[in-house]
Amino acid sequence: MVELRSRLTAEALGTALLLAIVIGSGIMAERLAGGNAAIALLANTAATVGGLYVLIEALGPISGAHINPVVSAVMAARGELPGAALLPYIVAQMLGAVLGAWLAHAMFDMTLLQFSTRVRSGTGQWIAEAVATAGLLLVILRAPHGRAASMVATYIGAAYWFTASTSFANPAAAFGRMFSNSFAGIAPGSVPGFVLAECAGAVLGVLLHNLLEPRFAASGHPNVIESSGEHPPQA
Amino acid sequence: MVELRSRLTAEALGTALLLAIVIGSGIMAERLAGGNAAIALLANTAATVGGLYVLIEALGPISGAHINPVVSAVMAARGELPGAALLPYIVAQMLGAVLGAWLAHAMFDMTLLQFSTRVRSGTGQWIAEAVATAGLLLVILRAPHGRAASMVATYIGAAYWFTASTSFANPAAAFGRMFSNSFAGIAPGSVPGFVLAECAGAVLGVLLHNLLEPRFAASGHPNVIESSGEHPPQA
Amino acid sequence: MVELRSRLTAEALGTALLLAIVIGSGIMAERLAGGNAAIALLANTAATVGGLYVLIEALGPISGAHINPVVSAVMAARGELPGAALLPYIVAQMLGAVLGAWLAHAMFDMTLLQFSTRVRSGTGQWIAEAVATAGLLLVILRAPHGRAASMVATYIGAAYWFTASTSFANPAAAFGRMFSNSFAGIAPGSVPGFVLAECAGAVLGVLLHNLLEPRFAASGHPNVIESSGEHPPQA
Amino acid sequence: MVELRSRLTAEALGTALLLAIVIGSGIMAERLAGGNAAIALLANTAATVGGLYVLIEALGPISGAHINPVVSAVMAARGELPGAALLPYIVAQMLGAVLGAWLAHAMFDMTLLQFSTRVRSGTGQWIAEAVATAGLLLVILRAPHGRAASMVATYIGAAYWFTASTSFANPAAAFGRMFSNSFAGIAPGSVPGFVLAECAGAVLGVLLHNLLEPRFAASGHPNVIESSGEHPPQA
Repeated sequence: MVELRSRLTAEALGTALLLAIVIGSGIMAERLAGGNAAIALLANTAATVGGLYVLIEALGPISGAHINPVVSAVMAARGELPGAALLPYIVAQMLGAVLGAWLAHAMFDMTLLQFSTRVRSGTGQWIAEAVATAGLLLVILRAPHGRAASMVATYIGAAYWFTASTSFANPAAAFGRMFSNSFAGIAPGSVPGFVLAECAGAVLGVLLHNLLEPRFAASGHPNVIESSGEHPPQA
Repeated sequence: MVELRSRLTAEALGTALLLAIVIGSGIMAERLAGGNAAIALLANTAATVGGLYVLIEALGPISGAHINPVVSAVMAARGELPGAALLPYIVAQMLGAVLGAWLAHAMFDMTLLQFSTRVRSGTGQWIAEAVATAGLLLVILRAPHGRAASMVATYIGAAYWFTASTSFANPAAAFGRMFSNSFAGIAPGSVPGFVLAECAGAVLGVLLHNLLEPRFAASGHPNVIESSGEHPPQA
Repeated sequence: MVELRSRLTAEALGTALLLAIVIGSGIMAERLAGGNAAIALLANTAATVGGLYVLIEALGPISGAHINPVVSAVMAARGELPGAALLPYIVAQMLGAVLGAWLAHAMFDMTLLQFSTRVRSGTGQWIAEAVATAGLLLVILRAPHGRAASMVATYIGAAYWFTASTSFANPAAAFGRMFSNSFAGIAPGSVPGFVLAECAGAVLGVLLHNLLEPRFAASGHPNVIESSGEHPPQA
Repeated sequence: MVELRSRLTAEALGTALLLAIVIGSGIMAERLAGGNAAIALLANTAATVGGLYVLIEALGPISGAHINPVVSAVMAARGELPGAALLPYIVAQMLGAVLGAWLAHAMFDMTLLQFSTRVRSGTGQWIAEAVATAGLLLVILRAPHGRAASMVATYIGAAYWFTASTSFANPAAAFGRMFSNSFAGIAPGSVPGFVLAECAGAVLGVLLHNLLEPRFAASGHPNVIESSGEHPPQA
């Protein structure tokens, strides 16, 4: 087992880089796309998918690479993350998310501290966030060993387009994107609705997983997000 | 062997999500693309490829992840799906397809029940659907173990572009897309022509497969759509 | 060893589908792209990469999936294809290429028999074709076992963009694309220059490979294009 | 161990092809994109990701496929590259970079010798280059065995978009791109700033890696860029 300090470093670093990728590529895409939002979202999607794949492969062997509070919560509920580590994990993720937003702003010569004015709310958006998060959990819980990184990244890329909310599916991402008044931002007032919908979606995803495999529902399932490579196990 | 109830749940859920992905990303793409149909179809393609890959990997170990009536029919004809399961499979797929269309509409704040007015017919379109479906069966029957998910998804992505019909290649998809008056829709009157062409294409695909390997033509071939990961076998 | 008839069927079918993919996606892309050639070529590239990957994986275990006369010639020179099979391979590929062009035209309701008027010539174009083909041979000869399909497809996708000729890299493709007066076409008068450049490039690619590994230059190298999956060996 | 001459050939050839890919696809993309810089960068990104993946897979077994002086320097510091080979590696990379730029110009019928006038400087750009290079080193040092090629290529693709500098992350690339007054170019006066930032980023990447795994920091780590295929080991 990797010691907790390294695991929290990995979660904070991973979430920071995820947010820098999502927000930074959004800024770049909006600057270059000449007003065509589909082109901007395509670029934002490509960068997110690639970045997410690499982060999960690289950090999975250390911390599981949850970089998402609802994933950590589900893992804790399933006994795959010690209960005592849950709160530290979430704090590391939230802290990393804000630092990642600021890192993106520093790279693009923008004011570090800012807040989004982009309202994202309404029934459709909330259904979309619940669907996006349910799908994410289903993918994580059902990914064959060694394919979690590519499946999660690929899934999020599809969900950027098929959900009306562009699939945040991650309370830490919603929190961090609140701090950026750019393409990927979300107004602070819209964050609670998104987070609630994501929590509901996570529960729905676990229920759907159990429905598919009733005999496994009561016990812990061995599938966790981890790299499948032959990275030497951490002590 | 996974019990039938779980398998039907997987087929219904998988087809529902496939349709939500195809229709939802089509709506999003059309809204954002500023009238450029190529950009819209690129986004629709990317979401479909990603979503299809994840669905087949995740659900393959349960039900085979056919999510397509002609695939189920070919599997039944080859003895890889019990004959008694064929009709339930198809009903689950058709039901899932309609639910998936409605889910897409719910996420995008659109009227749930609607019908497409987009006519898709003519000799070229029907040839294209037959070619698309023949290719799909050839890919499924010839995919090396463990590569079916990525090969099927990749193939469908290519076929979105090289066939004049954008490659439905799936009677359940044609049925479900009839219920959406959006980018991915098909007018109800055009569905029978597409379904007939798809059935003809499936037969053609099997014949081509047998032509390539004459000695295997008479017996069942072990290649079925299934995840190649080390997912624990289902009881 | 698969019997020759099946191998030639695979080469003809593979080359036909490759041309249908390249030409068909070019037609679709040009129709939808609203005059933006970069968007059209992006779509054409994506379809080609996906289609090529699937074709090589699916047909590699039967015939090696050369679907390219210069690849067959190099394999024959290296003793990996019986010399007597070379001419039949090339005939099957050329025949398939023309049929593939016609299939694309049938799907898009176009006149079957047509000739391109698009001139592609000049020193830059010829250097580009030689570079593209040299790179292709280098990739084929150096691909680790099981990665040839994805590496060849990925390479061709990159070469569509970094070479000035959009990387035909295949005399059968040049021959077949001559029969289509569409986005992917090439005027008959430009074909000989392309084919010569491709042959020169193939020689260059083999020389570069030998330069990298001088001790292997004299003997046959075990790397051939083949699927790496666990497809049952053909009798 | 492959003899040094072959390794240097591989490094020079690999860097030449990388620069030809980056510069060539930039020229093609700019010519076709009709002024939309996002579309041009998307095409440039796709070609770079594909080309980089193929180069690392194909050349990794010979030289490690560093094709980047800071990677070679880190490998030498970690004892994974003999110290005496470091300078020859870097010279081969720099030489290859210039030849690659000229090859791109030859293919596109442009003047061979030219210098970029595109200024790239400022705090944001330098932070971005440091971040890009730190991330690259982290990816290389943490990639599971057999996934380095796809992870490095995917990472660079994401970094083209999320960093403000479009992520050169490679002093040889900065040097070679100085010789091209095209989409991918960089003014000679901007190169020193980029190279300094890249060196700082490489150190930061190693420090972050050590922070994640404190017990491994003092000793050499077995992860190097190499192909994971079953390519026969070189003598």
